[in-house]
Amino acid sequence: MTHSEIPERMRASVLLGTRELAIEERPVPKPAADEVLVRVGAVGVCGSDVHYFREGRIGDFVVDAPLVLGHEVGGVIVAVGEHVDPARVGHRVAIEPQRPCGRCRECRIGKYNLCPDMEFYATPPIDGAFTEFVTIQSAFAHDVPDSVTDEAAALLEPLSVAITSVRKAGIVPGSTVLIAGAGPIGIITAQTARAFGAGEVIVSDLVEARRERALQYGATRVIDPRTENPADLDVPIDAFIDASGAAPAVQSGIRAVRPAGTAVLVGLGNPEMTLPVEDIQNREITVTGIFRYTETWPVAIQLVANGQVDLDSLVTGRFGLDEVEQALESDTDPDSLKSVVYPAR
Amino acid sequence: MTHSEIPERMRASVLLGTRELAIEERPVPKPAADEVLVRVGAVGVCGSDVHYFREGRIGDFVVDAPLVLGHEVGGVIVAVGEHVDPARVGHRVAIEPQRPCGRCRECRIGKYNLCPDMEFYATPPIDGAFTEFVTIQSAFAHDVPDSVTDEAAALLEPLSVAITSVRKAGIVPGSTVLIAGAGPIGIITAQTARAFGAGEVIVSDLVEARRERALQYGATRVIDPRTENPADLDVPIDAFIDASGAAPAVQSGIRAVRPAGTAVLVGLGNPEMTLPVEDIQNREITVTGIFRYTETWPVAIQLVANGQVDLDSLVTGRFGLDEVEQALESDTDPDSLKSVVYPAR
Amino acid sequence: MTHSEIPERMRASVLLGTRELAIEERPVPKPAADEVLVRVGAVGVCGSDVHYFREGRIGDFVVDAPLVLGHEVGGVIVAVGEHVDPARVGHRVAIEPQRPCGRCRECRIGKYNLCPDMEFYATPPIDGAFTEFVTIQSAFAHDVPDSVTDEAAALLEPLSVAITSVRKAGIVPGSTVLIAGAGPIGIITAQTARAFGAGEVIVSDLVEARRERALQYGATRVIDPRTENPADLDVPIDAFIDASGAAPAVQSGIRAVRPAGTAVLVGLGNPEMTLPVEDIQNREITVTGIFRYTETWPVAIQLVANGQVDLDSLVTGRFGLDEVEQALESDTDPDSLKSVVYPAR
Amino acid sequence: MTHSEIPERMRASVLLGTRELAIEERPVPKPAADEVLVRVGAVGVCGSDVHYFREGRIGDFVVDAPLVLGHEVGGVIVAVGEHVDPARVGHRVAIEPQRPCGRCRECRIGKYNLCPDMEFYATPPIDGAFTEFVTIQSAFAHDVPDSVTDEAAALLEPLSVAITSVRKAGIVPGSTVLIAGAGPIGIITAQTARAFGAGEVIVSDLVEARRERALQYGATRVIDPRTENPADLDVPIDAFIDASGAAPAVQSGIRAVRPAGTAVLVGLGNPEMTLPVEDIQNREITVTGIFRYTETWPVAIQLVANGQVDLDSLVTGRFGLDEVEQALESDTDPDSLKSVVYPAR
Repeated sequence: MTHSEIPERMRASVLLGTRELAIEERPVPKPAADEVLVRVGAVGVCGSDVHYFREGRIGDFVVDAPLVLGHEVGGVIVAVGEHVDPARVGHRVAIEPQRPCGRCRECRIGKYNLCPDMEFYATPPIDGAFTEFVTIQSAFAHDVPDSVTDEAAALLEPLSVAITSVRKAGIVPGSTVLIAGAGPIGIITAQTARAFGAGEVIVSDLVEARRERALQYGATRVIDPRTENPADLDVPIDAFIDASGAAPAVQSGIRAVRPAGTAVLVGLGNPEMTLPVEDIQNREITVTGIFRYTETWPVAIQLVANGQVDLDSLVTGRFGLDEVEQALESDTDPDSLKSVVYPAR
Repeated sequence: MTHSEIPERMRASVLLGTRELAIEERPVPKPAADEVLVRVGAVGVCGSDVHYFREGRIGDFVVDAPLVLGHEVGGVIVAVGEHVDPARVGHRVAIEPQRPCGRCRECRIGKYNLCPDMEFYATPPIDGAFTEFVTIQSAFAHDVPDSVTDEAAALLEPLSVAITSVRKAGIVPGSTVLIAGAGPIGIITAQTARAFGAGEVIVSDLVEARRERALQYGATRVIDPRTENPADLDVPIDAFIDASGAAPAVQSGIRAVRPAGTAVLVGLGNPEMTLPVEDIQNREITVTGIFRYTETWPVAIQLVANGQVDLDSLVTGRFGLDEVEQALESDTDPDSLKSVVYPAR
Repeated sequence: MTHSEIPERMRASVLLGTRELAIEERPVPKPAADEVLVRVGAVGVCGSDVHYFREGRIGDFVVDAPLVLGHEVGGVIVAVGEHVDPARVGHRVAIEPQRPCGRCRECRIGKYNLCPDMEFYATPPIDGAFTEFVTIQSAFAHDVPDSVTDEAAALLEPLSVAITSVRKAGIVPGSTVLIAGAGPIGIITAQTARAFGAGEVIVSDLVEARRERALQYGATRVIDPRTENPADLDVPIDAFIDASGAAPAVQSGIRAVRPAGTAVLVGLGNPEMTLPVEDIQNREITVTGIFRYTETWPVAIQLVANGQVDLDSLVTGRFGLDEVEQALESDTDPDSLKSVVYPAR
Repeated sequence: MTHSEIPERMRASVLLGTRELAIEERPVPKPAADEVLVRVGAVGVCGSDVHYFREGRIGDFVVDAPLVLGHEVGGVIVAVGEHVDPARVGHRVAIEPQRPCGRCRECRIGKYNLCPDMEFYATPPIDGAFTEFVTIQSAFAHDVPDSVTDEAAALLEPLSVAITSVRKAGIVPGSTVLIAGAGPIGIITAQTARAFGAGEVIVSDLVEARRERALQYGATRVIDPRTENPADLDVPIDAFIDASGAAPAVQSGIRAVRPAGTAVLVGLGNPEMTLPVEDIQNREITVTGIFRYTETWPVAIQLVANGQVDLDSLVTGRFGLDEVEQALESDTDPDSLKSVVYPAR
């Protein structure tokens, strides 16, 4: 596609209110000097998209104006800003959907995910990618090799969440990790933990089908927390990663961690939880959370390209731009794992 | 005191049951090959001693046999085991009151405070120092210069708690730290934070007299948490150290921490607390606790010897071995800060 | 000074060739959108300025076009770019004289000092501050309180070098540090090491007058390396910082470091040196260097404002813009320590 | 083998002087209270054994009394000291051939490899394992599963060197590492780097046959340093590991490292080398060495047991106790990679 072929206008699926979506026609955005314009190939549906759709807010982020959802994006560069090498046009890319300011203290210390002036896709008031074209800073449009599909390129975003979690958990060869929750994040985290060298990856989930799936994706062992208490396992747990957001899982997971171990809270649940402070103190456990990611796409691309993480087979539903509502509701199907929207369909 | 002057028997204040103390006569212990025998000069009274005295337990540690309390100890070496340099006899020392196994995984990775086979003074079933003589491994009897009094030598133990907290909190020159609680640990932690370079040390306490005292011991600012919410302070808080054990202080303290900051829970309170998980996640706050200490005495001695931390003036009560009960009950006096027992009196 | 009072043109001292300076008239620069315009109050003379003046190059950086030297700068904001708060006008500031790109991998991981697209003051082809007005990104013009003089504001730059060195050396309370060289950087580093808590700061220098000066600025002990070998000291050296650039000092300093210790090479000397690799291996010593700094000005300002580091008394020579040559040659006077240029004089 | 079956005396191959070996009969050692007695199954020949054999010294370690060489050991526990669980008898183990004191500062901070009172196998005056029985502390006799052969158990020692190097080099998924030298350590390090997630493992060696072998053992690319300068590679090198001990390799390797990268010097060469200090400074490269290892056997066992590292196929020569001289000389054969001695043969 040459520059002259880029249309003037494009279609977007816009959230107008709680559970209210509409297709709107909008002008195709122009890339700023350091940006690229990406024709969207595939967009993963994330739990946060579903949450905005159903609740109209996540914590302090409130949808009080029309918002385009979708922040897991693969596509192709079709135009570049004036400071960007034109040779990038035609590159297939995965988008890191954030625009940090690059100037503040958090940006300067390498924690740009915590930039207070962050503009993040599909987070009010910044539009996301359930649309035909998006812009992003050139440095945040990461080239992917042809072995990485558009779907996988989109799913590098949840893989980035998993990489951040596994890094914070300190997973290295020899580690034993407990992961609570075998949803998409739990499944990808299990694979990532293995890729980082974890010797044992124990996944807990209430649902047997999900436990069985975990065994296909990196788990070396699964447990039903109703019958097996993680804190009573016969192996020392170096790190616990919660991908469930469920308070009982968080509590028993922290209790399971060995002295000087780590607990990383990834799943979104209640804003407050009762935690076992005495365990944290007596075993000097480190408890922390993650908020998005920094510097994960290059690693993520490598893990997918060399086959250590499989993202393609996670896709259980495929939808056009007119079917975003169905995509957002697909999580009610217990067999659904990950839905993807294809705006060009 | 030469070896021949060491008596055969000594007096000890023994906890027989809840709030039941008695003076008993016991044989003076013999130092093992790698140990020294220390004539106890001064023993600080710690909140954990008070807790064992009143409740008969702390968490899983239950006093089910007679126990000598006291683990903050200064004294003088009067005899040495066969593998210890006899030139140590006569050295004034501060005791690091722990005996890790030296072989387990925790010991090998430098976390000997978490050794599962730890023998720690005044923790069932290991006797402490409300007695005339104690033994300790030679490496854990730290020489102090004459400028460090016996009382200060004893109080190097709570200073070690403070050093561990300040290290875990990552306090460096330029840091701003919030400390909840202006009791002995809070006061010593404030001084220690200053010695580590903290630019601002904000101490919160409900009691005005304690806030005023904090200002004399390192605090650059004090707040009454009933009228000033730590989370609304006009300076970014790099680290929060809880020395109160109070759930509301812990909650508001964690909320006050800036992105990528740290919260260290030192005060002992309820074994479970409701914590602001969403804040921990969204700002990637690290929450952890401390359990005793490793490698703190050399630094502690230096901080006291060069005047950066003042321990002597914290002593508000002095007691003989027959007065241990009064020493343990002295915390009911609001003017009391730190009581010390002198077994030789 | 209001915007209308800013002149159209200004005077600058320009390096035209080796040892060839001229005063030129140039247009006053306009601040870009995120920049401020600073009227220069004081500029410290650095060894690198002297080196460019005498040699016309430093390593790969060659002066092949007229260049304004000077990168240690204090002044006052007189105008701001369109995205900067106009309330900053009138603020007294210290300049962090670097413009990283904010987008590259080094910038993203918090190592913006290593940005390959860095524009650094007084480094070809970027002009420095021996002139009346300069621009800098607003975030790199750091407000200083009135207790910090213009000279001290300028000398926050070498203090930033010292802070970076001390950080990399891992200096914490209790550390013993050996510093080679008692020139301006060595002297400031000694003070900084003390401010970071070093218990012992041993400074070695060949010149007795410099050793005596070191004792006034933080050194607890000085040695003449011709009569006292640093590797034979009676205390374990946690860290060695070379501020001399002399190969014998670097070699004996590395040999002096205790197991698991650190050596930080700050002084510029020969691009290659013979180093004691066997010592580095057998004691697992970490050897590294520093290149400029990141996130040091806030700490530096605090250290000076609270009196922990004294910069003012280091100034031994004061010069006008017409006297830059004399300022650059002042290091030939053995009594000279630090010269400052005042462009407005 | 029951306790009664342990013989009174055993055969040992003893180094009497330079290139002078003899079989001697010695009493079978008795395990101390915390030790186990191991019947030696296989002992790898290390370059340091060869060096002692040929030169009679390594640096400050001088063979001035008869010495048993050999410190890479697999075997089976045949007796235990009084404090060791008798159930360990019969366990197949890999020996971590060091006895740190467990009390000194280095031991306490988790750097027991740097213990000044270390007793290390085959390092004067401590005997090694070219003999039938050896003792070691129980905690340093690591159980191996049956899938790990005696040879592999022995070679966990060089694997521990590789793991330590890779850890110090900071290899994580996505890293690109350059390894100089394709001898046994280089080959095992390449495999280990892959197991730790390195995306690219570039091995340089002068010998084509060795480069080809590297490609079979983890290298993704090999270079001949005479025709391809590592510093000119088209990929950024995160870490350089020298397994050659050759000064030109060390120099070009350090030059090849990207900003903020790491160089780990493992190979033993000249005690002093000319290093590119300017590169170390301008790119803030961290240069360090390794000295043995801590806490590596559990990971090493896992890497071999799960097939990520292949040690068995590295063995190119097998010798009895009477053939230790031939084993020590086998490195003169260019096809030899790793020789193993079987004392029971």
